[in-house]
Amino acid sequence: MSAAGENLKINSERLWESLMEMAKIGPGIAGGNNRQTLTDEDGEGRKLFQRWCEGAGLSMGVDKMGTMFMRREGSDPNALPVYVGSHLDTQPTGGKYDGVLGVLAGLELVRTLNDLDIKTKHPIIVTNWTNEEGTRFAPAMMASGVFANMHTLDWAYDKEDSEGKKFGDELKRIGWLGDEEVGHRKMHAFFELHIEQGPILEAENKEIGVVTHGQGLSWTEVTIIGKDSHTGSTPMPMRKNAGLGMAKILQLVDDIAWAHKPDAVGAAGHIDVYPNSRNVIPGKVVFTIDFRSPDLATITQMENEMKVGARKICDEMGLEISFEKVGGFDPVTFDEKCVSAVRNAAERLGYSHQNLIAGAGHDACWISRTAPTAMIMCPCVDGLSHNEAEEISKEWATAGAEVLMHAVVEMAEIVE
Amino acid sequence: MSAAGENLKINSERLWESLMEMAKIGPGIAGGNNRQTLTDEDGEGRKLFQRWCEGAGLSMGVDKMGTMFMRREGSDPNALPVYVGSHLDTQPTGGKYDGVLGVLAGLELVRTLNDLDIKTKHPIIVTNWTNEEGTRFAPAMMASGVFANMHTLDWAYDKEDSEGKKFGDELKRIGWLGDEEVGHRKMHAFFELHIEQGPILEAENKEIGVVTHGQGLSWTEVTIIGKDSHTGSTPMPMRKNAGLGMAKILQLVDDIAWAHKPDAVGAAGHIDVYPNSRNVIPGKVVFTIDFRSPDLATITQMENEMKVGARKICDEMGLEISFEKVGGFDPVTFDEKCVSAVRNAAERLGYSHQNLIAGAGHDACWISRTAPTAMIMCPCVDGLSHNEAEEISKEWATAGAEVLMHAVVEMAEIVE
Repeated sequence: MSAAGENLKINSERLWESLMEMAKIGPGIAGGNNRQTLTDEDGEGRKLFQRWCEGAGLSMGVDKMGTMFMRREGSDPNALPVYVGSHLDTQPTGGKYDGVLGVLAGLELVRTLNDLDIKTKHPIIVTNWTNEEGTRFAPAMMASGVFANMHTLDWAYDKEDSEGKKFGDELKRIGWLGDEEVGHRKMHAFFELHIEQGPILEAENKEIGVVTHGQGLSWTEVTIIGKDSHTGSTPMPMRKNAGLGMAKILQLVDDIAWAHKPDAVGAAGHIDVYPNSRNVIPGKVVFTIDFRSPDLATITQMENEMKVGARKICDEMGLEISFEKVGGFDPVTFDEKCVSAVRNAAERLGYSHQNLIAGAGHDACWISRTAPTAMIMCPCVDGLSHNEAEEISKEWATAGAEVLMHAVVEMAEIVE
Repeated sequence: MSAAGENLKINSERLWESLMEMAKIGPGIAGGNNRQTLTDEDGEGRKLFQRWCEGAGLSMGVDKMGTMFMRREGSDPNALPVYVGSHLDTQPTGGKYDGVLGVLAGLELVRTLNDLDIKTKHPIIVTNWTNEEGTRFAPAMMASGVFANMHTLDWAYDKEDSEGKKFGDELKRIGWLGDEEVGHRKMHAFFELHIEQGPILEAENKEIGVVTHGQGLSWTEVTIIGKDSHTGSTPMPMRKNAGLGMAKILQLVDDIAWAHKPDAVGAAGHIDVYPNSRNVIPGKVVFTIDFRSPDLATITQMENEMKVGARKICDEMGLEISFEKVGGFDPVTFDEKCVSAVRNAAERLGYSHQNLIAGAGHDACWISRTAPTAMIMCPCVDGLSHNEAEEISKEWATAGAEVLMHAVVEMAEIVE
């Protein structure tokens, strides 16, 4: 028997209590959490997770990026482990579920297997990836990125927070610098459960998102230079209004994203206007355009269309424009077999589900480059995340954790 | 004889030296000045000006707003004084001429009349209006506004700077709280020389702007509420992008201003985007639209067109919008006789000149409500002002000061 039956259920209350208990560490100011990576609060959260895992009989490995690997043995010494997990660190004004649900659902599935005395052929390893959020030390998904060989260890260690403290020093300071080489572990599969951080599942009234792809993304920082001048004493024909140039480009970005529907998106979330004074025509504007699509060629095409159009706009207005690529990753196609395991689990358990494309970056997006990987998403209220008001229902958490368990068990193979 | 001949010239070197000497007080970081109102530097600048004026035989009055009135007696005890002046306070990163030229040109014309032993029927009073810039304590043109009964004294005293210090307390602290009631002085005329702060005179190669009108202005602060959401995981049709709504309105503002050419202008210099993060669709944008015209009906019409159009844009996008009027003053038509005195002076002295509409607010705009008033403008390099790189030539300063002197003397009437 390789898959569990529909009667294999997690302990919903225990999962929820663990989520609430973890949320007491690094409380926010508005009901959420501030447990940023490598702070004392992060260290405390890690200790609690370690204690829970060891209580469930798991043994710990920690790598040189501080990532925690909590192992439940399998019956076959030669079988590669099935990994499951996400991250315990939060945004400065983050929620209680972003990342945390994926880690604690991993713990809960182990606890359930223990309760039922179920053994698997493959070991199961519950993982807490260091610094997924990237708010304190950019970029996001840092430890999984080093694990997948996207960044070097030294590059990560040198990253500084806004106070000039280095990642490497802070990792040592909180006592979570491990001795394992990063990325040496081989995985049979990796599963990450995460809240959707978008509005689709709730709007479609679905309990489970079967994540088939991760969107690729391209961030282009645009700088437009016009001329600071007085809003009153500069005649219209003599203006070089960088703010107006930006406005036309924001409209262009929107037009381009719609032209590449259904899955492409585009917008600018970051906009800085200089000198930002009521009576001075903006002489400089810096803003970042975010284009995403599950198809790499589409991203490239949208970027090119934007650059050509934006240059034309600025040429006509006498503005200078320059572009800098400040971020990006390629789209991800998750592993067919792992995705099927997720879909089968949802079917077997009778949860409503639909395919989904992960819009945000996740540790699973990096790990998919080194191991068969899939993601499961559960709805979150109003699509809200990276916000202390982030909320999910106990039922959604339960459904997600159960689908996670069944998918993991299908890959890890129950032994009689 | 009521007007001076073309041979009546100021001492160009002395004016320039005074400008350079004053600029040593409250130096900026890039060659300009930081002599914000009611700072120690403002106090020091006032003391220097007082010393110079007293050296020229002027007697001082100071009102309860700290405005300095430096009096040269006339021959007729019943003749109302001719006032001349501007302001010595600067922007935090201001230039050496904005305001200062108008005050020190007033001093220079008195020194010249002294040198030539010219007496006038009307007294001449050189004025330094407190807090014209309004950067430390909003609004701008504060003391002239109280003088013209646009604001009350207590209202001005209660204004706070960004550190919570009150205008009234700071005025007392620097020792420039006078005892004169504000606005009790009656004027025969008021003349203000100021740099253009715009590009027209330089572009047209004219030495003198004869200011016939002051533009009226309307500032509308617009708040658009959309919905913060993830740039990746929010499908295009489910977005409520406040930043995109703003972009469409910026285009609308530009279209409206052009539709009311030639003298109307419109733009937004102040734009704040929330939460201003690269991967969050803006859920809130606050920006200020600045419409100006020398015609009040045009301003009202532009505002109405903007509000109707902006509401339509936001309705279609599912955004909320609200408007708050945060500033404004009515257009000014300067006094015909005073404007003629300026134009006559430029003609007599052989300076190239053209009519101009003051695009920015000036103390003269408030004083014109209580006394016959006119303004003279001289070019500034590249139209640049409110900037440490603000620059004028000695020749432009000389031309402006000579036209000022001749206009003042025409109104003050030379006595043999």
